[in-house]
Amino acid sequence: VIPDTRVAVLGLGMMGGSLARGLAARGARVIGLDRDEGQVEAAMREGVVQDRLDGDLTGIETSEVVLLALPVHATIEMLPRLSGRLASARLVMDVASTKRTIVAAAERAGLGATFVGAHPLTGSHRSGWGASRESLFEDARIFLCPTASTTPAARQLAESFWRELRAGSEWLDAALHDEQMAWRSHLPHLLSTALALTLRDAGVRRSALGPGGRDMTRLAGGSADMWASIVGDNAASILAAIDACDEQLASLRVALTRDDADLVHRWLEDGRSWFDGSPDAVLTRPKS
Amino acid sequence: VIPDTRVAVLGLGMMGGSLARGLAARGARVIGLDRDEGQVEAAMREGVVQDRLDGDLTGIETSEVVLLALPVHATIEMLPRLSGRLASARLVMDVASTKRTIVAAAERAGLGATFVGAHPLTGSHRSGWGASRESLFEDARIFLCPTASTTPAARQLAESFWRELRAGSEWLDAALHDEQMAWRSHLPHLLSTALALTLRDAGVRRSALGPGGRDMTRLAGGSADMWASIVGDNAASILAAIDACDEQLASLRVALTRDDADLVHRWLEDGRSWFDGSPDAVLTRPKS
Repeated sequence: VIPDTRVAVLGLGMMGGSLARGLAARGARVIGLDRDEGQVEAAMREGVVQDRLDGDLTGIETSEVVLLALPVHATIEMLPRLSGRLASARLVMDVASTKRTIVAAAERAGLGATFVGAHPLTGSHRSGWGASRESLFEDARIFLCPTASTTPAARQLAESFWRELRAGSEWLDAALHDEQMAWRSHLPHLLSTALALTLRDAGVRRSALGPGGRDMTRLAGGSADMWASIVGDNAASILAAIDACDEQLASLRVALTRDDADLVHRWLEDGRSWFDGSPDAVLTRPKS
Repeated sequence: VIPDTRVAVLGLGMMGGSLARGLAARGARVIGLDRDEGQVEAAMREGVVQDRLDGDLTGIETSEVVLLALPVHATIEMLPRLSGRLASARLVMDVASTKRTIVAAAERAGLGATFVGAHPLTGSHRSGWGASRESLFEDARIFLCPTASTTPAARQLAESFWRELRAGSEWLDAALHDEQMAWRSHLPHLLSTALALTLRDAGVRRSALGPGGRDMTRLAGGSADMWASIVGDNAASILAAIDACDEQLASLRVALTRDDADLVHRWLEDGRSWFDGSPDAVLTRPKS
């Protein structure tokens, strides 16, 4: 589906830049837009993006695939602007980390038939064009969330699209996706930031940490813009996840306050059992 | 200092096994003990350990270096048993993760002159002889904690010992060490377990996590025996660290409950600033 396809990529950061690279490498004709003109220029200099889209989106009318690689709130703001302008589009897809609000906004903007919300479960704490790489989606898992009116053709196109980028995709209801991500992705990220802030206040620098502490604070290096947008869009589910985690910490506190060694041991052993119970609890070296 | 030195390694797990490997590779004559006889046999089969120590520690009298690589509580129990039996020892060192209680116990056991408490800031969530490797200490940072009576000769020997294993060492008061480790090591570990238990209760398997979530739950796979021992020995400092982290989560909760996007953004941005402010905030790919 990709060779010679006219693709518009809105947002040339880590995610959009990686999409543009992967698509260009497979022969797509990519036009791009970024609020940071320097990122567009870099993408054009490298021959990844063939032409720029201006702020009025002039030229987007001929795009067959339109990709929104923007923070959640910017995605939601962009969708109405695309309304009625995508006559050539067979697939419109975003790659933000929450899906419920975005899928609803696409439907409201009259883009429902061709729209698929996508969430690639990959990335890094880096951001910007400089962090993009062609192989980002290889072996990644992609959640695909349809609108109420996504056509079978658009669904098939979305599946083919990710297959050609060597990613695995699976369909999931948007509301269910967001609820699950509160636990699987957002809570881990927010705990990493909570740890970072705790260490900051204790006067501990990241360089003073061992491999474990560094792993635990890596996510805190992520883009605040992107994550504020995610967190704001999924606040209710995230609050429930934080509460549940607080309860686990409260159990530990009780055990420590009582000096109950058995209880502390059981708490730790329960965590280890969960770790071991998973088929991918592969024993790897910590990275340095 | 290592070639031809007679070294006794008590505990042939990940840490003790790695010490035995590193020392044997440099020509030391290593005798070893482990409560799991299979681990001793494996170490002898591989030619790392030349002879076994029995449960009565017969033969330890001739050891020049005695290394305790046991959980904290087992280290504390072992020290009085070594009392008066280490006439040949020039250096007695443990490698457990807390130091205050152990250094005090060594002094009480009359081993103060030759004793140095060591804490290698390295390791993995794996445990046992099978997880040991000769290079474990290369480029690792080692905290060294003296007793009140450690001799200059024993101090120098400890420094040389780690230098020959290619690790960097620095001296630190034992109580200060434990206080710092509550933040730098114990809190990250316990947050990882809290997250693991939260995900378990939410029905999320580790295989459902992306690279970030996997990093955040890696420490939860550590040995419950070892960590219960550490946590029990440093409970007061750990409780303070958990409280501080709880306060950070409480700030986030307030921001989310109020739907205060600016406050959420500032909270995330503060964490990112701490991450960036560190000289080793190196931008690395997440490991898969």
